[in-house]
Amino acid sequence: MIFRQLFEPLSSTYTYLLGCEHTGHALLIDPVVNSIDRDLGEIQRLGLTLAVTLDTHIHADHITGARHLKERTGCRIAVPAIDALPCTDLGVTEGVPLRVGSVVIEALHTPGHTSGHHAYVCGERLFTGDALLIDGCGRTDFQGGSAADLYRSVTTKLFTLPDEQLVYPGHDYQGRRVSSVGQEKARNPRLGGGKAQAEFEQIMAALNLPYPKFIDHAVPGNRQCGVCPTDLPEQMQAYCGRMTESVQG
Amino acid sequence: MIFRQLFEPLSSTYTYLLGCEHTGHALLIDPVVNSIDRDLGEIQRLGLTLAVTLDTHIHADHITGARHLKERTGCRIAVPAIDALPCTDLGVTEGVPLRVGSVVIEALHTPGHTSGHHAYVCGERLFTGDALLIDGCGRTDFQGGSAADLYRSVTTKLFTLPDEQLVYPGHDYQGRRVSSVGQEKARNPRLGGGKAQAEFEQIMAALNLPYPKFIDHAVPGNRQCGVCPTDLPEQMQAYCGRMTESVQG
Repeated sequence: MIFRQLFEPLSSTYTYLLGCEHTGHALLIDPVVNSIDRDLGEIQRLGLTLAVTLDTHIHADHITGARHLKERTGCRIAVPAIDALPCTDLGVTEGVPLRVGSVVIEALHTPGHTSGHHAYVCGERLFTGDALLIDGCGRTDFQGGSAADLYRSVTTKLFTLPDEQLVYPGHDYQGRRVSSVGQEKARNPRLGGGKAQAEFEQIMAALNLPYPKFIDHAVPGNRQCGVCPTDLPEQMQAYCGRMTESVQG
Repeated sequence: MIFRQLFEPLSSTYTYLLGCEHTGHALLIDPVVNSIDRDLGEIQRLGLTLAVTLDTHIHADHITGARHLKERTGCRIAVPAIDALPCTDLGVTEGVPLRVGSVVIEALHTPGHTSGHHAYVCGERLFTGDALLIDGCGRTDFQGGSAADLYRSVTTKLFTLPDEQLVYPGHDYQGRRVSSVGQEKARNPRLGGGKAQAEFEQIMAALNLPYPKFIDHAVPGNRQCGVCPTDLPEQMQAYCGRMTESVQG
């Protein structure tokens, strides 16, 4: 499998490019609207064709590149089926593999950061979106978020994967790029070291995070698969997707 | 490929188990003498046979498990050919792949921590030994060590690998397990961020590390492929290999 980890610095988002060497088809996990030229350039350099975009959840901090990538390439848009977005072509569901050539994605429903959030397993790699970050996790106070749900998602679905399973997060704000299930189980300060659910819930409740600055723009735009808000201040219009707020608080 | 990352807590050493699914042959990178029962148990559970042990360098902080593993299993002992240890069966050299079934190891001569140190590339993984640690590197003041050599080794041989190449270090003292070339290039505080050689040499010179407590026991023992010293205090004899000193200082 061809693999690239691409970083979008304005929102500190990782976009993952997975390509099948046999069919030349590629999939992008969590593309960001203001990086689609970079993403398409990379796909072209690798001699691939974009077949599918796949989001882990409805983002609140940046605008997905899905809609614009579809307009540019004719690719299909996949999102968790549970989010029931009319703008998508494919709904992914736990238990039903998504195949792009020889690349096989197993979806895991991991509610907690949002109610519809899914993580994706592809061979030795786990794409955790905002459910599990390196030494952290996404906040749980909006979009049907729930610390209890996130605890169950991480401890029963992600931490039960092999220790060597590679953790590729949806964001990192300190330049870290990869971890493993064993590492997060051992030392994630919110969820690792065998923490009990009550302790995790206390940690999340005590964060006292401010209201997310962009959520009222980003969520409606992302529910349309990536429409840039028209009611943003002008300087933000130039950088649709320039939403630099941390998802983990 | 079958892959396991095994942690030896007394010296914070990672031992890596690589197994060929077709032949059932396994290779251990940097086994530790006091963990050989654990290693052999894992190999047996996986239905594998130990074919080769492979050290990255002559360790100063723990005793290699190579000799005892050979006595127990009949495996072959591989080390960098440049170290010219009479007790070994195979000398590895940059440019000559080592094959264990379908597992192919490419050796890279990476002097600096020791003069004979080698890192090993196996597919998407890079086993860096003590040349490059997560957010750190091995000390350079003994065994033919040289900060100038280490700088050249890391910047010309390791940092020129793809950003996605996974970095599996020889040690970690904080429970981190995996990184990537891109991550270390960007944020390794000693070698990342485009640091110049002079700056790295200053950092290493300013560490002012104490004389390694075990080097006078470990190096002679490891030059015999893992003989436990007989002149250690009795409580250490019980834990041959119980040498908990940090290699990075």
